[in-house]
Amino acid sequence: MSAYRKGYKAEREIRHIFEKKGYVSIRSAGSLWPIDVLVGNGTEVYAIQVKTGKRKVRIDEEKLKEFARMFKAIPVIARKIPYHGWKIEYLTEKGI
Amino acid sequence: MSAYRKGYKAEREIRHIFEKKGYVSIRSAGSLWPIDVLVGNGTEVYAIQVKTGKRKVRIDEEKLKEFARMFKAIPVIARKIPYHGWKIEYLTEKGI
Repeated sequence: MSAYRKGYKAEREIRHIFEKKGYVSIRSAGSLWPIDVLVGNGTEVYAIQVKTGKRKVRIDEEKLKEFARMFKAIPVIARKIPYHGWKIEYLTEKGI
Repeated sequence: MSAYRKGYKAEREIRHIFEKKGYVSIRSAGSLWPIDVLVGNGTEVYAIQVKTGKRKVRIDEEKLKEFARMFKAIPVIARKIPYHGWKIEYLTEKGI
């Protein structure tokens, strides 16, 4: 599976996880962007960067935080760990 | 120019208009979506549906409002009027 396809599938999965909890989601068109998916439920908005694979990819957390803040969203890194499911990391406290 | 290309160009224009004022923007991937572009500056977030051409396209304003609310955003319809520039219509009061 191509890296693009893998990323797309992972983004779709994370959207479904939030949608099942009543969120709506937007997938960002543009890959050179700190935010891959934005989800919201009227109370909480999360700006999510999606990572797949075991490889440690350097993430520019400050850039993700900065962009999330512009959308009044909580920055989140969602990592898909092969054979282990998702690890969701919130970079700021909820509500900030 | 294809309808897709025309829409893409218009979305890019509206993003630039807001970016020049200090906003960051996300273009939504997925065309069957009430929100085409989301822009934010940390204080205001706008959920924008972009329309081009003279043709009166029926817009489902209620759906746009509902989705905007989920992102705590103000719903906006941005129409590009040929030879006349942009008409920006805010569907709710600022700050709501």
